[in-house]
Amino acid sequence: MAKSAEEEHPQKAVGWAARDPSGVLSPFKFSRRDNGDNDVTIKILYCGIGHTDLHNLKNEWGTSLYPMVPGYEIAGVVTEVGRNVTKFRVGDKVGVGCMIGSCRSCDNCAQDLENYCHKGILTYNSAYYDGSITFGGFSDKVVVDHNYVLRFPDNLPLDAAAPLLCAGITVYSPMKYFGFNEPGKHLGVVGLGGLGHMAVKFGKAFGLKVTVISTSASKEKDALERLGADSFLISHDPDQMQAAMGTLDGIIDTVSAVHPLQPLINLLKTNGKLIMVGAPDKPLELPIFPLLMGRKLVAGSGIGGLKETQEMVDFAGKQNITADIEVIPMDYVNTAMERLAKGDVKYRFVIDVANTLTC
Amino acid sequence: MAKSAEEEHPQKAVGWAARDPSGVLSPFKFSRRDNGDNDVTIKILYCGIGHTDLHNLKNEWGTSLYPMVPGYEIAGVVTEVGRNVTKFRVGDKVGVGCMIGSCRSCDNCAQDLENYCHKGILTYNSAYYDGSITFGGFSDKVVVDHNYVLRFPDNLPLDAAAPLLCAGITVYSPMKYFGFNEPGKHLGVVGLGGLGHMAVKFGKAFGLKVTVISTSASKEKDALERLGADSFLISHDPDQMQAAMGTLDGIIDTVSAVHPLQPLINLLKTNGKLIMVGAPDKPLELPIFPLLMGRKLVAGSGIGGLKETQEMVDFAGKQNITADIEVIPMDYVNTAMERLAKGDVKYRFVIDVANTLTC
Repeated sequence: MAKSAEEEHPQKAVGWAARDPSGVLSPFKFSRRDNGDNDVTIKILYCGIGHTDLHNLKNEWGTSLYPMVPGYEIAGVVTEVGRNVTKFRVGDKVGVGCMIGSCRSCDNCAQDLENYCHKGILTYNSAYYDGSITFGGFSDKVVVDHNYVLRFPDNLPLDAAAPLLCAGITVYSPMKYFGFNEPGKHLGVVGLGGLGHMAVKFGKAFGLKVTVISTSASKEKDALERLGADSFLISHDPDQMQAAMGTLDGIIDTVSAVHPLQPLINLLKTNGKLIMVGAPDKPLELPIFPLLMGRKLVAGSGIGGLKETQEMVDFAGKQNITADIEVIPMDYVNTAMERLAKGDVKYRFVIDVANTLTC
Repeated sequence: MAKSAEEEHPQKAVGWAARDPSGVLSPFKFSRRDNGDNDVTIKILYCGIGHTDLHNLKNEWGTSLYPMVPGYEIAGVVTEVGRNVTKFRVGDKVGVGCMIGSCRSCDNCAQDLENYCHKGILTYNSAYYDGSITFGGFSDKVVVDHNYVLRFPDNLPLDAAAPLLCAGITVYSPMKYFGFNEPGKHLGVVGLGGLGHMAVKFGKAFGLKVTVISTSASKEKDALERLGADSFLISHDPDQMQAAMGTLDGIIDTVSAVHPLQPLINLLKTNGKLIMVGAPDKPLELPIFPLLMGRKLVAGSGIGGLKETQEMVDFAGKQNITADIEVIPMDYVNTAMERLAKGDVKYRFVIDVANTLTC
């Protein structure tokens, strides 16, 4: 018989877990493996909350394993390093994103695209090499192979930097790959949430003209005045959308609800690129003719590789880019999940784990 | 009152036209403008037949103008040149593709992408600068602005070269733009018709590994033995499709019927590109998750600019690439249209206009 999560490994750990698809989180005792030769143990200070947590907690993708300790935007300090670890020392400010393992031998891994490795291991709700189920950042500590640990620059506050590790890299990676980092280009950002507001910040740092496209007029002021976007379109206003046709070089679409693509494709110039980073659970309708008429494309992109994630964090440090966050105590997490489901957060919840986690 | 097609212009012309959405073609007398300073008059020797002709003849896109003289794969010899024309001389072997005009001032035109100019003028079924309706290559002659005339190399037979001007450029252009011209890459070609068989030929000329993907097992022998494809997949055989998952760098999808994209997306490697060159009249279902999991993209591409079309013809000349054709007399055209609708042609009908057009 398999050991319980509490007995499986030698290091005692505490966190908050969901026990079933209700998704309700409550205190949970479990265990972490001993720090191995290639491992880094991290005392978790902060952990961001993203939409994937919401989907996983409620088993909306049908892949959830319970008990589940969510959390893949982890920031903390190193408390122990294995003897093969030269990159990190005790006391370093570090983070862990969505991934803690990959095969390290496939074509994807060889190209620093571990995020597309078919044997990638996620930070939680995934089977680790030893068969144990991984537990995420809503917990006091984590033991991670040093290859999957990121270093934070000193100037970034760890609470607001934590969301870089998912929200940040998810938009940064396609912006780089698809050339939305060339000054003067005009980028559309669909959806102004955790991912969208990071796309605006990176876009402005790259020297782009940025237009936010949203269903919600209430976000206009914030988009323009606080985040520095250059313009704002209400997606259900046909006059605004018509006037903006053919003006964008690219779009980062962060919306994971089912929504029409044609109005977005129409906003693109010839050779324009619509990049989906949200994951609607049903297929979207793709009209082909509008693609043909301007050599346009629709692509998907999922987080980023480890090397690029470190590059993104370093860039964020130089540009002083962090997420706009609402820091919450651990016992507020269930309310936060409800508010996140309604889009009621500007723009990312981050749990103050170290100061508020009790078990 | 507008003048009739026969009286509108000074030069008498004859061709075959459809009078209504039955699409039935019959002899037709009309007129062409006098050869202007920038014009080239071409005696039409051959004209290819493509699926767009079929759609237009039957008004399937709701944009048809009657009487309609189809034909946008025109090959012939120059019989007259205007005084500003220096590139062509009487007797030159030339051709005209899908386009005979564009604004020449927009961003698209400035980048040699006249094919994406919003004011592009099509070879037939389009309004010319003077307001007259354009008539295509199922006719004895055509008068065309020299900027939209292509030159055929001497070594290519004009009948088999004519289809380069639509079928050829439609696949060549995205193969170049999306990098499917790098030796060693693995290209899938969906649908082995007029466009598909040209994609196989260009693919092999570029040094690619080429896999044909078809619903029709009967095409396997021809694909492998005559066209030189490296492998063949039956798209409705789940075992074959499963075994080929993740093996292709790119796909040229020539099918204009509504069809599922996910099985094709699954064939792509990370960063793989699915390029649609057919134009289904309904939106296709696009699953987003499979795109995210490998940074894959779905794009559209429509013919090519004039400069690239000439480059393609020159490349075809050097590589001795032409279409596999069935040459038909003009009065066989209605039967040919019926056979084309059933896919019963290997791989392009070309009308022997000069020897068989009677009116």
